[in-house]
Amino acid sequence: MIYLTRRERFSAAHRMFRQDWSDEKNREVFGKCSNPNWHGHNYILWITVKGEPSEDHGFVMNINLLKKIVQEKIIDKLDHRNINLDVDFMKGRIATTENLAVAIWEELKNAIENEGACLHCIKIEETENNLIEYYG
Amino acid sequence: MIYLTRRERFSAAHRMFRQDWSDEKNREVFGKCSNPNWHGHNYILWITVKGEPSEDHGFVMNINLLKKIVQEKIIDKLDHRNINLDVDFMKGRIATTENLAVAIWEELKNAIENEGACLHCIKIEETENNLIEYYG
Amino acid sequence: MIYLTRRERFSAAHRMFRQDWSDEKNREVFGKCSNPNWHGHNYILWITVKGEPSEDHGFVMNINLLKKIVQEKIIDKLDHRNINLDVDFMKGRIATTENLAVAIWEELKNAIENEGACLHCIKIEETENNLIEYYG
Amino acid sequence: MIYLTRRERFSAAHRMFRQDWSDEKNREVFGKCSNPNWHGHNYILWITVKGEPSEDHGFVMNINLLKKIVQEKIIDKLDHRNINLDVDFMKGRIATTENLAVAIWEELKNAIENEGACLHCIKIEETENNLIEYYG
Amino acid sequence: MIYLTRRERFSAAHRMFRQDWSDEKNREVFGKCSNPNWHGHNYILWITVKGEPSEDHGFVMNINLLKKIVQEKIIDKLDHRNINLDVDFMKGRIATTENLAVAIWEELKNAIENEGACLHCIKIEETENNLIEYYG
Amino acid sequence: MIYLTRRERFSAAHRMFRQDWSDEKNREVFGKCSNPNWHGHNYILWITVKGEPSEDHGFVMNINLLKKIVQEKIIDKLDHRNINLDVDFMKGRIATTENLAVAIWEELKNAIENEGACLHCIKIEETENNLIEYYG
Repeated sequence: MIYLTRRERFSAAHRMFRQDWSDEKNREVFGKCSNPNWHGHNYILWITVKGEPSEDHGFVMNINLLKKIVQEKIIDKLDHRNINLDVDFMKGRIATTENLAVAIWEELKNAIENEGACLHCIKIEETENNLIEYYG
Repeated sequence: MIYLTRRERFSAAHRMFRQDWSDEKNREVFGKCSNPNWHGHNYILWITVKGEPSEDHGFVMNINLLKKIVQEKIIDKLDHRNINLDVDFMKGRIATTENLAVAIWEELKNAIENEGACLHCIKIEETENNLIEYYG
Repeated sequence: MIYLTRRERFSAAHRMFRQDWSDEKNREVFGKCSNPNWHGHNYILWITVKGEPSEDHGFVMNINLLKKIVQEKIIDKLDHRNINLDVDFMKGRIATTENLAVAIWEELKNAIENEGACLHCIKIEETENNLIEYYG
Repeated sequence: MIYLTRRERFSAAHRMFRQDWSDEKNREVFGKCSNPNWHGHNYILWITVKGEPSEDHGFVMNINLLKKIVQEKIIDKLDHRNINLDVDFMKGRIATTENLAVAIWEELKNAIENEGACLHCIKIEETENNLIEYYG
Repeated sequence: MIYLTRRERFSAAHRMFRQDWSDEKNREVFGKCSNPNWHGHNYILWITVKGEPSEDHGFVMNINLLKKIVQEKIIDKLDHRNINLDVDFMKGRIATTENLAVAIWEELKNAIENEGACLHCIKIEETENNLIEYYG
Repeated sequence: MIYLTRRERFSAAHRMFRQDWSDEKNREVFGKCSNPNWHGHNYILWITVKGEPSEDHGFVMNINLLKKIVQEKIIDKLDHRNINLDVDFMKGRIATTENLAVAIWEELKNAIENEGACLHCIKIEETENNLIEYYG
């Protein structure tokens, strides 16, 4: 079994808050991350797939195909967007990196399996000091 | 003459657009950077000051003092904020990194000179592929 | 299950040696790392905790709480210190990165469990070419 | 159990192609990576070994010994070489990073076990956006 | 005056040698860099332009235009290529990073001036330890 | 004129203090950097030389020669050492990075000129957030 990881990036705005909470409650739980006028990050995303290398061409999965799937399903929807307002697969979820990792997993899983590989991990770096991993 | 550089970071939302332009004109000039619902970045900021090292303590400028000035005048105002809406010294300027570098220079210049050093360069990385430098 | 990682840094002096060995024996086993006048590193520390994201706020664990625990129990004791001489939880252990990782695990485990998360991994980079991981 | 990782680098040329395929077929499957006049990379290689830290000296494995093994068996054969033409252990394999990781594992496994540690992972970064891991 | 830097990358094979020198002389001067079967690198290229930010849109130069010029004139010709054999603007020059920086300067200078900015610096990183700068 | 930069690293202990000052005065000026039992860093050092590329071989200066000079005159003396106690060229100077940059310049200047190049800059990173440059 070989693990292949592709690194992608997207720049997005977000805000952490719950509409059913008061402003004070939001600020108490989410701190400066609840700023009403948003803030943003250069997110780094690593998608890891696993499988046996093909005897035909020696790849776990053609990297260009993986790039194309991630570009269409994830990057085109997140890059230079507002995660709370512009991203269909984040509707109804608090815009934490934890929830973002789970949502990206759900968007990618089938498309990668259709190409004969298996999705192994979604890793997201929000800042150079904070990162999230999800293994399904 | 010795050059001392301090690296700081802030995460902010912004949008590039002119109110006196139509949406099409904004999109034509600024592309996806004009997204109406904002996007954001992890900005990296390097402040370079220059001077003779003190014979007393061997520093160009006490780094803790430099940190304090930059924290109060720049980071507290930009971090987890919206550059267009929340930042007093960016009012009336298009939120490009070029304009941000000039504005940060203006905010810091006197405070650093008051401590006996000289501001040399403001460098800002917007993404890992784009950076701006301003030398006054 | 989601994995949340916080990155922290500390700068410390250390020396690898055993008091019950001769200087030659120490130099033979530990090489230049046994220099009697110490040397030092910018250590990078990653603390990974795991758990289910809260339905209430979407986090595995509040990152500010994690930062506070690590700051008080680890960074305040190691940063700008001598690992052999100044750090209570390293007393009686050879100052290898292996032993440091185990000691940090022991210092953090209960405090993190008390907040409802589970400590998963302590990773320490001593130089850009050497790193240690410990999973309990 | 402790995991110790050593980072090494090598700069090499390679080309992905199969001699039993036409030029068109090679270009269709491998794209620009099949360029007949080669291309190259600064590969980064992480070797992870695992074991119990010695009570004698506190190491999983002496890092200088690990460096020496990797230098002789891997770096001296790959650095400033052509992976397809110059490297004995890659003969008969397509020069993908997947196959390279498996081959490096096979070259190192016994030598590391002879020193009392256990090889855990070979990780190779081909570019900053693509990496491969192999766990045997 | 503002300085705007764009970072780009290309992966290429090369070899340092002179055809009018013997193999021994080439190996004596260029060492392992003269390996007859080539080797390669992930080159990182920074292009710095300078100018006054436009009052119209706040940019020194539209970054998308700069990307397009560099892509067509430099990256398309160097990426996944052999610098000695495949690159028209390196014909007749020894494939050192010094010569590459000068050649890239010559390829870009007019195209950037035609857009109203001024080329300031070409910086190339060959490995993480070696880099070259050229200011014209 | 071409600028060639070599990156090197060394791990060292140090302490900032003046013997003719009281402990309180040292702590007031140098803060935690005056810890009596030392602390340490992974210093990164960039040495930049400048010159015309040789028509003979295309280099500003043979990089292997530059490495050898820096290894013997700087790295062998600083790596895994105590800057205050073990380093001849730092005797009598406060162990700030400013003073270290000046001292390294003085150690290297003649040796580089003897090889036909010109020393341009000494840059030292003490931590990822603090760096010093000296141009003679």
